[in-house]
Amino acid sequence: MTDFRQQALDYHAHPKPGKITVEISKPAETSKDLALAYSPGVAEPVRAIAQNADDVYKYTAKGNLVAVISNGTAILGLGNLGPMPSKPVMEGKALLFKRFAGLDAIDIEVSHRTTQDFINTVSNIADTFGGINLEDIKAPECFEIEKALIERCDIPVFHDDQHGTAIVTAAGMLNALEIQGKDLNSAKIVCMGAGAAAIACMELLIKCGAQRENIYMLDSKGVIHTRRDDLNEYKALFANNTDKRTLEEVIQGADVFVGVSGPDLLPPSALKLMADKPVVFACSNPDPEIKPELAAATRDDLIMATGRSDYPNQVNNVLCFPFIFRGALDVRAKAINDEMKIAAVEAIRELAKESVPDSVLKAAGVEQLNFGKDYIIPKPLDPRLCQRVAKAVAVAAVESGAARIDLPKNYMAD
Amino acid sequence: MTDFRQQALDYHAHPKPGKITVEISKPAETSKDLALAYSPGVAEPVRAIAQNADDVYKYTAKGNLVAVISNGTAILGLGNLGPMPSKPVMEGKALLFKRFAGLDAIDIEVSHRTTQDFINTVSNIADTFGGINLEDIKAPECFEIEKALIERCDIPVFHDDQHGTAIVTAAGMLNALEIQGKDLNSAKIVCMGAGAAAIACMELLIKCGAQRENIYMLDSKGVIHTRRDDLNEYKALFANNTDKRTLEEVIQGADVFVGVSGPDLLPPSALKLMADKPVVFACSNPDPEIKPELAAATRDDLIMATGRSDYPNQVNNVLCFPFIFRGALDVRAKAINDEMKIAAVEAIRELAKESVPDSVLKAAGVEQLNFGKDYIIPKPLDPRLCQRVAKAVAVAAVESGAARIDLPKNYMAD
Repeated sequence: MTDFRQQALDYHAHPKPGKITVEISKPAETSKDLALAYSPGVAEPVRAIAQNADDVYKYTAKGNLVAVISNGTAILGLGNLGPMPSKPVMEGKALLFKRFAGLDAIDIEVSHRTTQDFINTVSNIADTFGGINLEDIKAPECFEIEKALIERCDIPVFHDDQHGTAIVTAAGMLNALEIQGKDLNSAKIVCMGAGAAAIACMELLIKCGAQRENIYMLDSKGVIHTRRDDLNEYKALFANNTDKRTLEEVIQGADVFVGVSGPDLLPPSALKLMADKPVVFACSNPDPEIKPELAAATRDDLIMATGRSDYPNQVNNVLCFPFIFRGALDVRAKAINDEMKIAAVEAIRELAKESVPDSVLKAAGVEQLNFGKDYIIPKPLDPRLCQRVAKAVAVAAVESGAARIDLPKNYMAD
Repeated sequence: MTDFRQQALDYHAHPKPGKITVEISKPAETSKDLALAYSPGVAEPVRAIAQNADDVYKYTAKGNLVAVISNGTAILGLGNLGPMPSKPVMEGKALLFKRFAGLDAIDIEVSHRTTQDFINTVSNIADTFGGINLEDIKAPECFEIEKALIERCDIPVFHDDQHGTAIVTAAGMLNALEIQGKDLNSAKIVCMGAGAAAIACMELLIKCGAQRENIYMLDSKGVIHTRRDDLNEYKALFANNTDKRTLEEVIQGADVFVGVSGPDLLPPSALKLMADKPVVFACSNPDPEIKPELAAATRDDLIMATGRSDYPNQVNNVLCFPFIFRGALDVRAKAINDEMKIAAVEAIRELAKESVPDSVLKAAGVEQLNFGKDYIIPKPLDPRLCQRVAKAVAVAAVESGAARIDLPKNYMAD
């Protein structure tokens, strides 16, 4: 076992197992403290909530509490291993919610028989939380699950593998196209991969201006086209009325390549066929669809992003999910709607155009970061992200009617 | 509103809502930290758990995590108010788990249609946790729910309103009878109340030696006897083959009165009818079945306990539930069986016979506490409880075959 792999196991095991704990946030030492926290004092907030349901936000931790929920059917790049093996990932996600946005987050791993059983279980416990982050649930079930839970729950339900990825991809993509002097509306787009993330990325790009007929999506059987009879309803939305069948055929003259598929699936010969000044997002992780060194050696007019932290332009969901929940929960949004997602895209885009604080440069180990081909999206450790993205999302929630309360005072300050 | 009631609301609301938070227990500042906590490092514990299911205890917080689960159908003395109003109570219970036994505990409020729906929901999320504490679920559904969940889950499931109450009651009762020179085996027992706590108390007293035919249980319609045709299956187990119908009739010559019913239901005239040297547990809270002052004025040969902290001999579940879970989780018990419950009874009993540390006297605001009629059970803030009760429970789990691992080293020390 490599040093890093052993370090990762040690990190999870010592000094005690796991990465999160539940702690007491109020005085709880004396008999008096406990009489307020539990019997008889606790009867007062109970009565208050029974009279006015919204008081649950006033007297309990609900309003700052996110559930990270999975069934372990699509764990990272590891596949369908089931609920228990997903627990370290879900605890890790909870850790990121706290680290980046100060949200209390707890993982829930669900064992279930049918998709309906999963939906029912989650909707039965949903009121416990201020929001639900669905994670590592395989396609196509994830689409049905998210749709049903959004309908049944009156708190935000967000499948991060879809929408977090889509938001960060769209932010980077719009900036990359701007730098290349291109327009999303007329861009020819090749999407390698047809899973949850791929479909969500393309749907959000369409909401940002891309034309559906300009998108060529490929799954393991090649181009998704209108004469295929093996498509689920989600892939079918991307069936292109084309006679092209292979990557080599569709990538001719493409402006954009988005890879959410697997290692080395974009050969240099295909990259050469793209239009001038192409944008390549090779997001398969840890091994991208084409290695950045190989892409750069193949042509020098491209802008490239990957999922990796050791290359420029990392497409990392952590740029979005902590803050979209922060903003949504701070105005008690009923849901995370398109307006809020697009506000997050714009806030992330804009931040990349601003000058970067020294602390971020130092953490990134670089001397400077200027908006351009090697810096199209902010760094994950940029401390400005929380305020910017959360505020943009909260404002969009208020303006679009998703918010239940007005902007809190600390959002007004700047 | 009284000062205390306002204080209780303020306590829950400020400086931020609620009583618990989720915190990070590992380094999470730098990119390196996050690479261990999440992608790519987290893949290692995922793979380990996929290969060896028990590794979930090694690499995640599961082994120290308790879910406090309710549907809010029997909240404290307040009744069936539903899941959301129960949240402050469940958070309070989570706080007590942490405060007294260092366990991470999170509340889950369940909305459901049928009892089966509740059972299914809880069993679907059970693997997330090391143990499940059911709370404030009304009878008789609570019996069916607990039974089904014990069958379906391979972690401890414990309905504290039943068994926590029963264990503390049994500990105090055995000590009180010892002081009075009586034997549980031959004691005549009157139980006022026939809900979850009453039935669990009587079942545990039977396991400790009481004779079922010596127990006279009363519900709101009077004595539960063999000719009644309105009894659910749980009450029916206590149908006594007697021609007595009222409290006054059955309390003649009784050695023990246990009240888990309502205020002032034991009149002095009935108390006078009990045998010499009776034991009276008037546990209705905050207003007992008979006020201690009135009981003492009625006769001077009794030993009395209540649910209140401002009288001697408080029957308080917190003497048991944090520690029975501590012991059970520390040996990864599959369930909390009778042997473990009886071990908890004995450990609590024994502690009351030992000399009391100054810190406990100070917290209780008294000069001394000596085993006797005014000190039959330990004080809730006695710091020796955790080690004693948890160890007794863990040892009983190992000896009865409920434990999955041997006693941890820190249990061997003394």
